[in-house]
Amino acid sequence: MSEALDSAKSFLKEASVKDCNADELIEALKLVKELDEEFYENTLKALTINNLANTAVLMPDYMLNDLLNCFSTSAVAKAIEELESDDATDLIQNLEHLDESKAKLILNSIEKEHKKDISLLKTYEQNSAGAYMQTEFLQAFLNESLQEAVQRYKKLKQSGELDQVQQFFVTDEKGVLQYCLPFGEALLWNFDTTFKDIMKDNSDKLIKNFVYDNDDIHSVVNLVKSYDLSVVAVVDKNKNLMGRITYDDIHDYLQEQATEQIYNLAGVSDEAEEETVSKATQARGFWLFINLFTSLISANIISLFSGEIEQLVALAILMPIVASMGGNTGSQALTVTVRKISLGDIKFSNAKHIIFRELRISLFNGAFFACVMGLVAYFWFNITMLGLVIALSMLINLGLAGFIGSVVPLTLKKLGYDPAVGSSVILTALTDALGFFSFLLLAKMILL
Amino acid sequence: MSEALDSAKSFLKEASVKDCNADELIEALKLVKELDEEFYENTLKALTINNLANTAVLMPDYMLNDLLNCFSTSAVAKAIEELESDDATDLIQNLEHLDESKAKLILNSIEKEHKKDISLLKTYEQNSAGAYMQTEFLQAFLNESLQEAVQRYKKLKQSGELDQVQQFFVTDEKGVLQYCLPFGEALLWNFDTTFKDIMKDNSDKLIKNFVYDNDDIHSVVNLVKSYDLSVVAVVDKNKNLMGRITYDDIHDYLQEQATEQIYNLAGVSDEAEEETVSKATQARGFWLFINLFTSLISANIISLFSGEIEQLVALAILMPIVASMGGNTGSQALTVTVRKISLGDIKFSNAKHIIFRELRISLFNGAFFACVMGLVAYFWFNITMLGLVIALSMLINLGLAGFIGSVVPLTLKKLGYDPAVGSSVILTALTDALGFFSFLLLAKMILL
Repeated sequence: MSEALDSAKSFLKEASVKDCNADELIEALKLVKELDEEFYENTLKALTINNLANTAVLMPDYMLNDLLNCFSTSAVAKAIEELESDDATDLIQNLEHLDESKAKLILNSIEKEHKKDISLLKTYEQNSAGAYMQTEFLQAFLNESLQEAVQRYKKLKQSGELDQVQQFFVTDEKGVLQYCLPFGEALLWNFDTTFKDIMKDNSDKLIKNFVYDNDDIHSVVNLVKSYDLSVVAVVDKNKNLMGRITYDDIHDYLQEQATEQIYNLAGVSDEAEEETVSKATQARGFWLFINLFTSLISANIISLFSGEIEQLVALAILMPIVASMGGNTGSQALTVTVRKISLGDIKFSNAKHIIFRELRISLFNGAFFACVMGLVAYFWFNITMLGLVIALSMLINLGLAGFIGSVVPLTLKKLGYDPAVGSSVILTALTDALGFFSFLLLAKMILL
Repeated sequence: MSEALDSAKSFLKEASVKDCNADELIEALKLVKELDEEFYENTLKALTINNLANTAVLMPDYMLNDLLNCFSTSAVAKAIEELESDDATDLIQNLEHLDESKAKLILNSIEKEHKKDISLLKTYEQNSAGAYMQTEFLQAFLNESLQEAVQRYKKLKQSGELDQVQQFFVTDEKGVLQYCLPFGEALLWNFDTTFKDIMKDNSDKLIKNFVYDNDDIHSVVNLVKSYDLSVVAVVDKNKNLMGRITYDDIHDYLQEQATEQIYNLAGVSDEAEEETVSKATQARGFWLFINLFTSLISANIISLFSGEIEQLVALAILMPIVASMGGNTGSQALTVTVRKISLGDIKFSNAKHIIFRELRISLFNGAFFACVMGLVAYFWFNITMLGLVIALSMLINLGLAGFIGSVVPLTLKKLGYDPAVGSSVILTALTDALGFFSFLLLAKMILL
């Protein structure tokens, strides 16, 4: 343990003098907090303002709390001013979540222009393009020359107000977006040319890709992917230029969304995992509790057949196999369906088509493993009919598992829920219950 | 079904006259192939050369096969020449996989320069930066002026040879990378300035981010994420400029990697799912087979306690609950550990730290659910000691599940395997076996 602590500490020592990678800083802070609270607090207090700002955006709640205790309102406000508007807004919203009155004080200490941007971004719905955009961009006007816009860009760049820009967003004098001129195009023009003339001569080549601020972020990602865009402009319903979404926002979104999906499928909350052990335990415990409840239902089904099990203990030995195979088959179908929904791969093939595919796959495998398991059971217990019973119940359970595995997420999606949340639990509940029930009922009817 | 088919068909009709989105084309082709083979073949033959090239890169094997049957060697070669070098190489490798001799013929029909690039890219290991780079980039030389480089860029752009460029890669006359000059920086300089002078005046601001061609793609992604880069230069071990990796390559990598991980955790192969129902069935069947095998081991463990179950059928009723809760707890720990490994979140916290965290979470939940289930069992069957037995075995099984769930992927990773592949199966095998064994053994020792 001490080796990891030492390397984290030596890394953190640098964070008071130079800018460090924020992800690594967070990981190091988390470790040090658990093992050396005093060193942790001193490090936090000594962070450069840039490090402070960049890590604050990524901090779990408990660490943000420490930050609120270590720094004055105005110091936090100063750090927030260092951030781009989208990150600043995320941070303010995290702080509001923790301590509403303190967050309000901080917001009020932020310089006016920044505050206005944050207040605007806060109004957007969580999954809208507006919530992901930043309000820092390079605007140019139809009536000005390339030279004038370049000069303005130079000043903005020197003052550090604008970073990672790759094009001019050209608007009319009212701010309505006309087109985007990538720097690569701009380089090829005489700098005396006005943006209006560039538009006239070149309208077929100009990039007009933009999204509306209320568009779903998912459709923005699809647009970016389809046309390999590095940046998209964001406009309001009147096409007024509002902001931009850049490739790094898309990276972050893709990675966060994947993590959320993987975690949700396993009954884990991505947010709680970033917090303390106790928060993570509670969030996982919630899904375990639901699982316990459904397991008790399955146990009740088994108890209906107590008499049969007493008569033939082989039933107790074999029944978990049917349930386990059904659960696995179902979770294969579930995972594929959830992922296809999220990747937008179901534009043309409708739900029926997906369900039909999953049903075929699970029935093929069901038929195969029914034969295998029928033979195994027959040779193991030397009861012909027991082989038939387990074969039949395998076929039924695996077939239904594929059906359920695709229907559950599609239904959740249709009803407006996240298809990854809770679907595994519903699936296991059904495949367990059906596995035990079909096997024991068939045994009762055919065998005993 | 017909509605989906109609919309796919009307979309495909456009693909013979204008460039369409490749993802959507593939989805539509897949659907039409299943439902109207004749229409499918006619569409394939009528695709524009751009559409042909862009979809071929994404085609599953069975569709690529159809393509080889519909088109001549030279037509396929022509389409490949339309692609950027990285996509062209992927496609040639897919074709080699299908029909080595035909792929060779196609490669030999490709124009010399393209062929050279493809041959170079083919030499790289699957997960190296070189395998992800494209050889199309905008080179500039220390001794030339900005003006000269811009003129060259203009020509390359007009000929369609270069797309999505955002900076000059400046090298010495031997091709050794000196620095990268983003177009945004270039705009601010007098065009008569040489790249050498720009470097002299501005060395602190120049971007020097590059990766070596043999670097792991994962470390490239981390670099890109850490510094919000849109493009990185790729150099060989002598720092000769070889190619570049762009933000859209990173997007694709992130999304493919996430899909692979989610699928692997559920015992599904991402590649086989793109193929026919029969290929997908076989790939899923493989993991189901392993699961059947481990289930039989668990069944054998249960059979050791046949006598006890005959004596007290409540054991058969309750034992699946212990196994199911253990499986779920373990899969929570497993998923979090796999994801943390892949996100690179374990730089400072070593393996011990992660295992310890998972163990704590699972023991807390184990203790809680042990109490709950102990009480439930006691009130259900009115046997005090049965409550104790199930409580103890829940605590043991859930605690071990958290331990196993974190140890298995960390060990796989340590041994050089993908921590997502097979880890779920190993986990379930162990939690099932341990669940049944601990519960039945404790029952035998304490209760009977």
